[in-house]
Amino acid sequence: MTTTSMVQPKFLTNGDQLGVVAVGFSGGQCKPGVDAAPSALIANGLLTQLQEELGYNLFHDDTVHSYKELLPSRDPDFRGMKNPLAVSAVTKKLSEQVYAHAKEGRTVLTLGGDHSIAIGTISGTAKATRERLGREMAVIWVDAHTDINTPEGSGSGNVHGMPVAFLAGLAKEAREDIFGWIKAEHMISLRKLVYIGLRDVDRAEKQILRDHHIKAFSMHDIDRHGIGRVMEMALGYIGNDTPIHLSFDVDALDPMWAPSTGTPVRGGLTLREGDFIAECVHETGCMIAMDLVEVNPTLDPGVNDLGAHETVRAGCSLVRCALGESLL
Amino acid sequence: MTTTSMVQPKFLTNGDQLGVVAVGFSGGQCKPGVDAAPSALIANGLLTQLQEELGYNLFHDDTVHSYKELLPSRDPDFRGMKNPLAVSAVTKKLSEQVYAHAKEGRTVLTLGGDHSIAIGTISGTAKATRERLGREMAVIWVDAHTDINTPEGSGSGNVHGMPVAFLAGLAKEAREDIFGWIKAEHMISLRKLVYIGLRDVDRAEKQILRDHHIKAFSMHDIDRHGIGRVMEMALGYIGNDTPIHLSFDVDALDPMWAPSTGTPVRGGLTLREGDFIAECVHETGCMIAMDLVEVNPTLDPGVNDLGAHETVRAGCSLVRCALGESLL
Amino acid sequence: MTTTSMVQPKFLTNGDQLGVVAVGFSGGQCKPGVDAAPSALIANGLLTQLQEELGYNLFHDDTVHSYKELLPSRDPDFRGMKNPLAVSAVTKKLSEQVYAHAKEGRTVLTLGGDHSIAIGTISGTAKATRERLGREMAVIWVDAHTDINTPEGSGSGNVHGMPVAFLAGLAKEAREDIFGWIKAEHMISLRKLVYIGLRDVDRAEKQILRDHHIKAFSMHDIDRHGIGRVMEMALGYIGNDTPIHLSFDVDALDPMWAPSTGTPVRGGLTLREGDFIAECVHETGCMIAMDLVEVNPTLDPGVNDLGAHETVRAGCSLVRCALGESLL
Ligand SMILES: [Mn+2]
Ligand SMILES: [Mn+2]
Ligand SMILES: [Mn+2]
Ligand SMILES: [Mn+2]
Ligand SMILES: [Mn+2]
Ligand SMILES: [Mn+2]
Repeated sequence: MTTTSMVQPKFLTNGDQLGVVAVGFSGGQCKPGVDAAPSALIANGLLTQLQEELGYNLFHDDTVHSYKELLPSRDPDFRGMKNPLAVSAVTKKLSEQVYAHAKEGRTVLTLGGDHSIAIGTISGTAKATRERLGREMAVIWVDAHTDINTPEGSGSGNVHGMPVAFLAGLAKEAREDIFGWIKAEHMISLRKLVYIGLRDVDRAEKQILRDHHIKAFSMHDIDRHGIGRVMEMALGYIGNDTPIHLSFDVDALDPMWAPSTGTPVRGGLTLREGDFIAECVHETGCMIAMDLVEVNPTLDPGVNDLGAHETVRAGCSLVRCALGESLL
Repeated sequence: MTTTSMVQPKFLTNGDQLGVVAVGFSGGQCKPGVDAAPSALIANGLLTQLQEELGYNLFHDDTVHSYKELLPSRDPDFRGMKNPLAVSAVTKKLSEQVYAHAKEGRTVLTLGGDHSIAIGTISGTAKATRERLGREMAVIWVDAHTDINTPEGSGSGNVHGMPVAFLAGLAKEAREDIFGWIKAEHMISLRKLVYIGLRDVDRAEKQILRDHHIKAFSMHDIDRHGIGRVMEMALGYIGNDTPIHLSFDVDALDPMWAPSTGTPVRGGLTLREGDFIAECVHETGCMIAMDLVEVNPTLDPGVNDLGAHETVRAGCSLVRCALGESLL
Repeated sequence: MTTTSMVQPKFLTNGDQLGVVAVGFSGGQCKPGVDAAPSALIANGLLTQLQEELGYNLFHDDTVHSYKELLPSRDPDFRGMKNPLAVSAVTKKLSEQVYAHAKEGRTVLTLGGDHSIAIGTISGTAKATRERLGREMAVIWVDAHTDINTPEGSGSGNVHGMPVAFLAGLAKEAREDIFGWIKAEHMISLRKLVYIGLRDVDRAEKQILRDHHIKAFSMHDIDRHGIGRVMEMALGYIGNDTPIHLSFDVDALDPMWAPSTGTPVRGGLTLREGDFIAECVHETGCMIAMDLVEVNPTLDPGVNDLGAHETVRAGCSLVRCALGESLL
């Protein structure tokens, strides 16, 4: 290892190599601007910091992918889903990109984009982990939302509210061009999924959580136990023998710290709690990949872009913490 | 029960019936505007949410009571108290309104108004509880202040700083038209009173707390133990065999979350902590009534009424949490 | 004791006497304005409150010292340090002022000024404690920063980043006029130093912490354990038989509560946590002196001086809590 972190990665042969995929995609929901996040994060110095301060060897094509070539001219709703062909095609391609890094035993960082892209990232690392290690990985999903709606259960039809349903096989579709490409090798087990930060969950989603006994820590749990104890419980549930994919939706943070996001919800994590979660996941040595999603620098409820600037800075901080930055 | 809550009320025969009293009264203190709170809360959708989302059957006269007919033309100070005749007459009437709901075994929600109105609400539920159940109820008083001044101990003469003193019999007055109507059946025991959120307590009030061994959790205690442990201790002190009247002064919240209130004090509860307190009280199944007081939408230190809007939203959130809204 | 505190001081013969030194000095760093802090704190009523509300007998020369007479006309960099002659001369004089109070068994309060002045305050109390009690004192350093750089390890050359290094003997200089006046009697032991609130520590400083096994609680530790448990651990480490000098850099607070300071760092203490730390130190009965530093009322990122006003109020609150103000 050449990184400055003192944590030895348990499941990566080249953990000091950081595969980076920048995904300028917003088709999983309706507000333009979340596709501008990777450029904003990079312009704020994120990749330079990862390389120069944390010591990673970056594997990045220096491109923010818009996947224009994959977007169909017509993309009618299907089973209520909006942009089904586009989201399916982009996430299929992203799955291959992430897989290409992960199969080399690299740490993978994906900068979204809306949360629909997790269909691509998680399917890619799940497949690589099965091939490299012969095992299933766990997913820690930090979010105000569960994103586990089925197409039929969704009110909005936005696919960024459905990625977990597709990844876990709760939602299925035979059509190859509409997520039919997701095979068993791409999938995750609901028993290895842990939510943190929930506070805006649809009624149908609550029922899914109960029916499948999914491990979930809401803001109520964080208030009750404190974030320190919650992370102990979350990581204890996963165990220390399981690779972890961390999918971090910036809307898990309170709008006070991350206002520039498509579906802000009050009563969220402080930036300190968000950083703490990322630090704890890093400390396990089990993290194999991280997504940072839903930063939307064009949505700014503040003045003079202050909110957007703060949200981008918060996003960079979360990534650096997950990749080994520590206070002492 | 037809409410969506999975908690069974222990002391209510008709807990899914919600008696609502909207009290547009500000005479317990000197700043106009707190009488506008019930309308603002209702306009923000509170009652609709309680009915449609939480499933309560509302018993409400669709009136915000200003009690104009009860207000005297002259109301000189008495024993230092301001507006003594008005506050006494309004709270006496309110006591009867609350009692009428409570004796039916309904949950009672009172939307204030300043905190002097708790003389009415608590005396009403205390009496009904004695009649229905043959027992004393507990009071959880969430506030930056103790509101336990006697008329003689008060610096300001505002009765919203005295309701606990009158309810517990520390302050007494023979004149029927100045709180003399408060009889033993209306009163509460200081041994069944718990304060949460205190941070601005007068010297004389501190002495009362000590002399009577009143259970009180200040912000210091919340910082020391965390709100989870504090609620365990608070509810453990009351025990699970006692009906609870929750009297929530919005100034318990930090001005960052609830700036629009008459006597804001820094260093208060976060909105998350406030909601958590309300959720925990609901979870006991022992709550029989709630007051929400001191929202003043006309006081707004922010710009463009943002503070007032946030304070009203916070108030609605506290009420919904106390009445069974949960994150998961 | 005539103070209102119910805590009996363990190491002070005249703990109700408060020696106050107001230090209008900013030479330990480059931003003007931190020298205006003592006047702003006093204008906000701090000394009046300490006298009238907390009951201290003030020993104060009614002067905000600018030490103009000690400032050299030329002060070239030396070993990379900026203003070395000025900072050395001022802190030497301040050391004598603090010593004069401390040798009388008084509580000492120093209002800075930048954090370089701790060279003066701590050397003064350390010497007096050795003489009065024949023992070493402990230092609790509450700060976003460790301020333990050596002149050679410092990037900026600002001495306010070096006071701990000089006080602990990690940095030494023979020249009497450049900190050579610091003798063994003035020094502190790194084994009796505890940091709280750290979140922006230079790489070389991290190495010093590790090499010397210095007790340090970063924001990560506070998130993990909560401030209540952290204070238990911090005070347990010191033990209850050791006099404590509390050196509080207002930048330990998050910029949300204390924006007007020279080197703000996000992710800091809430005002509640800051007050809690000060309250806990007071409760030990071991506190013999407090510094409040780095309030800079001329730096205001807010509008209409709101940030400066809040920072000054926060500073006053920290001092009052350390000197015995309590919520209940
Ligand atoms: Mn999401
Ligand atoms: Mn979300
Ligand atoms: Mn109050
Ligand atoms: Mn009140
Ligand atoms: Mn500092
Ligand atoms: Mn400092």
